[in-house]
Amino acid sequence: MASIDRYNPVTSEIVAELSGIVGEKYVIFGDAEKLQAWSHDEVAEERYAHMPEVAVRPATADEIAAIMQLANREMIAVTPRGAGSGLSGGAVPLAGGIVLLTGRMNKVVEIDLANMMITVEPGVVTNEINDLIRDDGLFYAGYPMSLETCYIGGNVAENAGGGKAVKYGVTGRYVTGLEVVTPTGEIVQLGGKLVKDVTGYNLIGLMVGSEGTLGIFTKITLKLMPLPTANVDLLCLFESAEQAIGAVPKIMTGSGIIPTAIEFMDRSAVRASCEYLNETIPYERAGAMLLITVDGSGAEQVEREYEAIGEMCLEAGAIEVYVADNFTTSERIWKVRRNIGEAYGIVTRYQSSEDLVVPISEIPALVTGMGRIADKYGVQIPCYGHAGDGNMHTRVVMNPDWPVEKWEKTLPVVLKELYELAKSLGGTISGEHGIGHKRKKYLPLVMAEPVIDVMRAIKKAWDPNNILNPGKIFDV
Amino acid sequence: MASIDRYNPVTSEIVAELSGIVGEKYVIFGDAEKLQAWSHDEVAEERYAHMPEVAVRPATADEIAAIMQLANREMIAVTPRGAGSGLSGGAVPLAGGIVLLTGRMNKVVEIDLANMMITVEPGVVTNEINDLIRDDGLFYAGYPMSLETCYIGGNVAENAGGGKAVKYGVTGRYVTGLEVVTPTGEIVQLGGKLVKDVTGYNLIGLMVGSEGTLGIFTKITLKLMPLPTANVDLLCLFESAEQAIGAVPKIMTGSGIIPTAIEFMDRSAVRASCEYLNETIPYERAGAMLLITVDGSGAEQVEREYEAIGEMCLEAGAIEVYVADNFTTSERIWKVRRNIGEAYGIVTRYQSSEDLVVPISEIPALVTGMGRIADKYGVQIPCYGHAGDGNMHTRVVMNPDWPVEKWEKTLPVVLKELYELAKSLGGTISGEHGIGHKRKKYLPLVMAEPVIDVMRAIKKAWDPNNILNPGKIFDV
Repeated sequence: MASIDRYNPVTSEIVAELSGIVGEKYVIFGDAEKLQAWSHDEVAEERYAHMPEVAVRPATADEIAAIMQLANREMIAVTPRGAGSGLSGGAVPLAGGIVLLTGRMNKVVEIDLANMMITVEPGVVTNEINDLIRDDGLFYAGYPMSLETCYIGGNVAENAGGGKAVKYGVTGRYVTGLEVVTPTGEIVQLGGKLVKDVTGYNLIGLMVGSEGTLGIFTKITLKLMPLPTANVDLLCLFESAEQAIGAVPKIMTGSGIIPTAIEFMDRSAVRASCEYLNETIPYERAGAMLLITVDGSGAEQVEREYEAIGEMCLEAGAIEVYVADNFTTSERIWKVRRNIGEAYGIVTRYQSSEDLVVPISEIPALVTGMGRIADKYGVQIPCYGHAGDGNMHTRVVMNPDWPVEKWEKTLPVVLKELYELAKSLGGTISGEHGIGHKRKKYLPLVMAEPVIDVMRAIKKAWDPNNILNPGKIFDV
Repeated sequence: MASIDRYNPVTSEIVAELSGIVGEKYVIFGDAEKLQAWSHDEVAEERYAHMPEVAVRPATADEIAAIMQLANREMIAVTPRGAGSGLSGGAVPLAGGIVLLTGRMNKVVEIDLANMMITVEPGVVTNEINDLIRDDGLFYAGYPMSLETCYIGGNVAENAGGGKAVKYGVTGRYVTGLEVVTPTGEIVQLGGKLVKDVTGYNLIGLMVGSEGTLGIFTKITLKLMPLPTANVDLLCLFESAEQAIGAVPKIMTGSGIIPTAIEFMDRSAVRASCEYLNETIPYERAGAMLLITVDGSGAEQVEREYEAIGEMCLEAGAIEVYVADNFTTSERIWKVRRNIGEAYGIVTRYQSSEDLVVPISEIPALVTGMGRIADKYGVQIPCYGHAGDGNMHTRVVMNPDWPVEKWEKTLPVVLKELYELAKSLGGTISGEHGIGHKRKKYLPLVMAEPVIDVMRAIKKAWDPNNILNPGKIFDV
């Protein structure tokens, strides 16, 4: 990584200056044990980690602006970090330098009921937003599966998606305003509490999903939705993964209904999560299952919709359809779904978490193709995820009999084949986790060089010294 | 306009080369009468018009790429033009040069029912999309009010919004894939038939609403929605504009229902349109009215929702609430709404069509403020529009007793005051019409210089020679 060499080391003078900006107790320097925690995100493999030289914990946009100005003057890289729950290495301080922790910026700035908007700082845990507004009959619909730990700032940086994206879309749909500290240390306001705005280029859209390379969000305004008053989950058991996944395009196009979620879990994913949680949900006879949510403002409507979808599942070969129409049962099932990643995570660190996305009609071909690749290379590729969006999660898990060297040689080959499979089906390499530096070298597989060049030019325009989160998405 | 001087004239050699690219009969040169039609869009005032030197009518992306390469080599400006139904001068060839007409590119490339997507060329009339897919139980929800004449390419360029934006959002929400000819003449693919995609920066989001300055769209993939099977319009009469507009935030936040549309029309707007159409809808006793649409997949649900909203209107002081639950009646009312602009358009060309947008809670203050400005300067400012989005349309109409000179001196003062009013309420100067060159000089009122600089840098990255639609949004 050639670009990394050109940064200057963090000296004790710079540490002193940082202490002057944020206060001494919010600067962590020379404590390798503490700093180590910020050297990686949820990507398990060590080779994606890199130690920061110093960590700072600012509390205001002004402090962040001052840090960015200092960093530009002294040529020191800055990597912003939220909860560290990312899955592509986006928060890893690849060039060392400063890791900028947003956890102290966790204030709710305003709940504006009259406009159904909330403005928060980036370090607010996403789930807190929904806890705060539930009693007002509102909810924030863009949250991802990791909502209990992730920060909203990271959600915006990654354009996180979640279990309700089929009906409600992902983070970006709800971001109407941003206060941003630019890479050169200016504080700018984009948008506001506006649901329509065509004043100039869509810079909010560009910021969302820019993976911490174009700016640090210091205030985020989100549009809220009326909280659905009725909610039902269907757990639909199928004999095979092919049958389950084959039902998805039928439900999406044949019912005239937009379900809130269609999640797919194969047998091995369900079993792993159930064992991890010591939970029992009915899966013994099932090779795979769909977890389908329907919500709305009227119980009869929701009932009519889930009955129609349940019928479609049975027609598509479901062995059984269970209805979960109360919070406790729903939560049990969703917990199984949410913990699949976690469950696999503890088995071995020799695995790679992927989130390929394809057109919905190609999901069956994707799942079949993944099985073929698993067989070819003798690895496990359990499969689960947001089938209703065409966004399948999977883990490539090392064969436990292998020596690590074999794994390290095989994984890049398997990944390349998976990514090429997704591309051949009209898909791409990430639906919600991002490119970060984990998938950086694969970006040219799915994106033409002139397009990557345009992204480089945009990065250069915002960040002429390449100070903010260097080495992510593409090399400059 | 300093930048305009540096382009070269279109010589007969260049005309010959253009003929070689698109065919002789698709090049219009030296025919001032024909060219005049492409010197303006729907902005009435002559000073916003500018003649092109030549018009070309390409049929393929390859032809457009060749034109852009030629234009870069010879330093000739190119202005793309769809149906010419824009309202900010976006399609006006300010620097002369080539006006590039997309009307021949009007093919439907693919209707993909399995993915609920349609791919079209830019010259397809927006309404045709819905005509084509209605029988399949689908619809394209992003269309604007001018759907019967506008082209989908222009909708994407302007990020057009429409009467259903409250529930369904605007054009950008539905664009999942683009084939783009870049300003330097490369053909690039962005996105695809994917509902989630975080591979690199959100360049589709940047292209949408870029007003023809960053690329020419040659294929557009749109996500479709299940066609609602039930649809009801409410026409709610209020004694005053203040009462009507005051009901809007209450409906939006108090009902737990997301209506499809909430349109506002004041008395003078309704009267003008009814007279223009020779139509009668009940408005005699009303100072203003709300046109509210509710749609869904179940008749009972829609009934419950419109009854709840109707009740809220009555509680907020409505004199009368009419229900239009059949297509003919609905269409009559919507036609009155859609033709307000047209109706005023024929009265005088001394008027300015505006589309201020504010947070929903500020609409009453905006309407009151507009009345104050109208009184202060002695102009008419009739008011109508997408109240449910906070996006109010209005026309500043010349006092017929004035000499034109007085109008021309007064209008910029009135506009500046209107824009400052919107800004003071947390709003901005355009919700859906765009900046174009009509509002260019007012952009700094609502956008900080560093932000405009970033947009300039993005433009420079895509279009180093400033060939594509120069002089729009900002000067480079």
